[in-house]
Amino acid sequence: MKQLLLIFAGLLVLPFNTIAQKVTQEKLNQLAMEHGKQSLNTLYELLSLPNDAHYPADIEKNIQWCEKAFANRGFATKRLETSTVPLLLAERKAKKASKTVLIYLQLDGQPVDSTKWFQKSPWIPALKKPDGKGGFTEIDWSNLSGSFDPEWRIFARSTSDSKGAAMAYLTSLDVMEKLKMEPNFNIKVIMDFEEELGSPRLPGAVVAYKEDLKSDMLIIFDGPRHVSNEPTLTFGARGIATITLHTFGPRVAQHSGHYGNYAPNPALNMAQLLGSMKDKDGRVVIPGFYDGITFDEKTKAIMASVPDDEEFIKKKIGIADIDKVGTNYQESIQYPSLNIRGMSSGWVGKEVRTIVPPTATGEIDVRLVMESDPERLIGLIKEHIKSQGYYVIDNREPTEEERMSKSKIVSFDYEVSYKAFRTDYDTEVGQWLVKAMTKAFGTEPIMIRTGGGSIPISPFVTTLGIPAVLVPTVNPDNNQHSPNENIRLGNYVDAIKTFTAIMTEKL
Amino acid sequence: MKQLLLIFAGLLVLPFNTIAQKVTQEKLNQLAMEHGKQSLNTLYELLSLPNDAHYPADIEKNIQWCEKAFANRGFATKRLETSTVPLLLAERKAKKASKTVLIYLQLDGQPVDSTKWFQKSPWIPALKKPDGKGGFTEIDWSNLSGSFDPEWRIFARSTSDSKGAAMAYLTSLDVMEKLKMEPNFNIKVIMDFEEELGSPRLPGAVVAYKEDLKSDMLIIFDGPRHVSNEPTLTFGARGIATITLHTFGPRVAQHSGHYGNYAPNPALNMAQLLGSMKDKDGRVVIPGFYDGITFDEKTKAIMASVPDDEEFIKKKIGIADIDKVGTNYQESIQYPSLNIRGMSSGWVGKEVRTIVPPTATGEIDVRLVMESDPERLIGLIKEHIKSQGYYVIDNREPTEEERMSKSKIVSFDYEVSYKAFRTDYDTEVGQWLVKAMTKAFGTEPIMIRTGGGSIPISPFVTTLGIPAVLVPTVNPDNNQHSPNENIRLGNYVDAIKTFTAIMTEKL
Repeated sequence: MKQLLLIFAGLLVLPFNTIAQKVTQEKLNQLAMEHGKQSLNTLYELLSLPNDAHYPADIEKNIQWCEKAFANRGFATKRLETSTVPLLLAERKAKKASKTVLIYLQLDGQPVDSTKWFQKSPWIPALKKPDGKGGFTEIDWSNLSGSFDPEWRIFARSTSDSKGAAMAYLTSLDVMEKLKMEPNFNIKVIMDFEEELGSPRLPGAVVAYKEDLKSDMLIIFDGPRHVSNEPTLTFGARGIATITLHTFGPRVAQHSGHYGNYAPNPALNMAQLLGSMKDKDGRVVIPGFYDGITFDEKTKAIMASVPDDEEFIKKKIGIADIDKVGTNYQESIQYPSLNIRGMSSGWVGKEVRTIVPPTATGEIDVRLVMESDPERLIGLIKEHIKSQGYYVIDNREPTEEERMSKSKIVSFDYEVSYKAFRTDYDTEVGQWLVKAMTKAFGTEPIMIRTGGGSIPISPFVTTLGIPAVLVPTVNPDNNQHSPNENIRLGNYVDAIKTFTAIMTEKL
Repeated sequence: MKQLLLIFAGLLVLPFNTIAQKVTQEKLNQLAMEHGKQSLNTLYELLSLPNDAHYPADIEKNIQWCEKAFANRGFATKRLETSTVPLLLAERKAKKASKTVLIYLQLDGQPVDSTKWFQKSPWIPALKKPDGKGGFTEIDWSNLSGSFDPEWRIFARSTSDSKGAAMAYLTSLDVMEKLKMEPNFNIKVIMDFEEELGSPRLPGAVVAYKEDLKSDMLIIFDGPRHVSNEPTLTFGARGIATITLHTFGPRVAQHSGHYGNYAPNPALNMAQLLGSMKDKDGRVVIPGFYDGITFDEKTKAIMASVPDDEEFIKKKIGIADIDKVGTNYQESIQYPSLNIRGMSSGWVGKEVRTIVPPTATGEIDVRLVMESDPERLIGLIKEHIKSQGYYVIDNREPTEEERMSKSKIVSFDYEVSYKAFRTDYDTEVGQWLVKAMTKAFGTEPIMIRTGGGSIPISPFVTTLGIPAVLVPTVNPDNNQHSPNENIRLGNYVDAIKTFTAIMTEKL
């Protein structure tokens, strides 16, 4: 423990650097630390509000809490009503500001299974310290009266995803109040209370409240840092489309003795169809699938500078080799993917029956990048299926006439959930954020060109026509979406520092 | 109804022919009809005994019933004990007999779901007549006091599978008693009370009681006739082996955004592997799989004479085209099959999740024929998997070392359940049965070279070294294994006729 404290102490004596408006890096560290500690009571209060969006009455309490928190900090708040729970918009104008920055925060959380949490309740925050054996031991909150160890963590639902970031942002506003400073831009904060449901009402709301949301750029205070836990900026995210395929054999299951070798097997058809889409190295072989993806030298260099330890990743997830799409992890996720997320026909294991199954199902997710128009990609996949000799019908059972006249039938259904977005490193928002973070941490942040996952940001980018960059701050090992979600205190303090640095950086 | 009665009356005036030992076909029809009707009370009694082999106490009552029934007909009975319920052997010697015929009967039944039966209970037999709309209407048993319609049916569990055949056989013994005749061969009847469990104790019992079972040939009074419901003999059955395959991806499911295009997908591997085993027409492409299968002209002619209405079959099961293994149905089932009976990876439908699954499962059943040694076939499939670049392990998870060093791993498990058996048309038993049935029905029976399904007969053939032929008698539309199982009275009477003809045919 002493060693960990020394490490944290080390953070406080980094080389002296002036940052924006005369706040030194040392001063910033000190303020983030002090205010971070003071804010923990309020964070505890926020984390104690259940926030599963399946329960709108619980969400209402979170909305009211946010309304009060932003009103107390000089913001005007407005509920952007939808057919379910509203989004909340908080706005604060700055004197002589010419630009408006939109900030996205997420307040709802994943459902919980309380029995799998090593504490009283996911809604009663617990303070824990590392037990030296890879686990954590709960300690009393009174331990926070003196100095605290950045390795200590708070465990509760939404600590990292993403009430921790929201509270850190509120605290950065308090730091600026203390410094008697204000940004040189107007702030609009948009709060999402249905993110974990996939933000189904967000795209419509962005259209409906376009004028309210009007701004020059979007920054997203959400998500974990790069796996190295170094300061990170993420410039884009892959979109996602899904496809469901069904193949058809006999109308109902048939005895495999009587009809094996006779009735065509839909599982074989599905296997051959899915198998034909990629080569043995995991590369999609459908012509045109990867079209348009190139990297200039600068992009290659920035991607190469991301400190991915690929041997570590492979060991962590337990694979000997990777798909041969990109030459490294960062490159791999610049391409659209075609992933079989589910496959089923007949029964397996103890349920197994000796039948020719009547149908087989293939579930595919296609991660989208900027270069791949989703409709075009979906079209290529559909054409490929036709080229394999299949008669393609929309999401339905074949008619009796089709059954009796077409030997190979596939039903094809798809949905484009989110489109991809990506902001150039060289944009105003990109350069501004890099500058702020470099000042705060003394080195350039890790710059992720595209995150592999998909987030509901493209509606802002498309509808509002503004660039977006993510500023992830929480620890990557935070058990997001799982039991025992947590935030590392060092990351929480760094988040306050990060947001303060951004808010005080001249735009 | 009148029309149906006339049809049945027509059966009684078929051309006069002497059959064995001076019993005319007309006399045989009349006796089968009379004794069949008399036996229905006893059949009712037998059908009222629950016989799901999961309940040994119920089975015991069936065994005692059979012991009594055979003892009453001059048989010595002996229980062949196993670790669960015994097999029952009943034996009756004939004067001056030189040969012994072993007869297989099955007395247990499939489990029932009483809620799906259109009658009080599956164990309370119901008499029903066709309602003219494809269904049946229950009628009072008193309707049997006069002449009855062969289209009427008795509904109860095991009517067709296979207490109906057992009772018909007992009744044929009564007919012979009435005629004061006896076979010119010794009879051994072996009764199986665990057939619907897959006769797990039978192979061991045949070895243990080899001397008791010693005989010259086996005839099996079980199963439905050819789909045309014409008199049928079946000379063989395919065997069955099963294979379970698992492929492996990341150790646990991974986010398909973070790892799609990077972590190899086990569902893709499984799809490609299963897809590689057959061509698009359903033919196995693994070299040697179909080796050794040829048909001489006589065999071709007998197979071609089976009145399969393939357009009807295709329409019935709802397929436009058939696998290109044989040129017709009978030919198709002379080949070993490789059928994907189940396939699973990740989740589908409402449960679907955007993941790279950790594993995929493929369940295969291989129907075996005489020409295909099961171990050889299984070996060919295993070699094929290796030739696709897979490291094959036995039925287990890969070790950490294997995960990190082998990029494609398959676990392979298999079991040979039953071997195939097939008896030549020209054998003594074959010719004897054809002769008896031709005399009984005026035309040669349909001769099925190999049934597609698998039955536990090979232990007799292999261990006792005797040929076996099936004499199926019940209606093919009997709902075997399903709710509302039934036997058509015309088939029941024909079964008595068939068995009497066989018992009185000189061997």
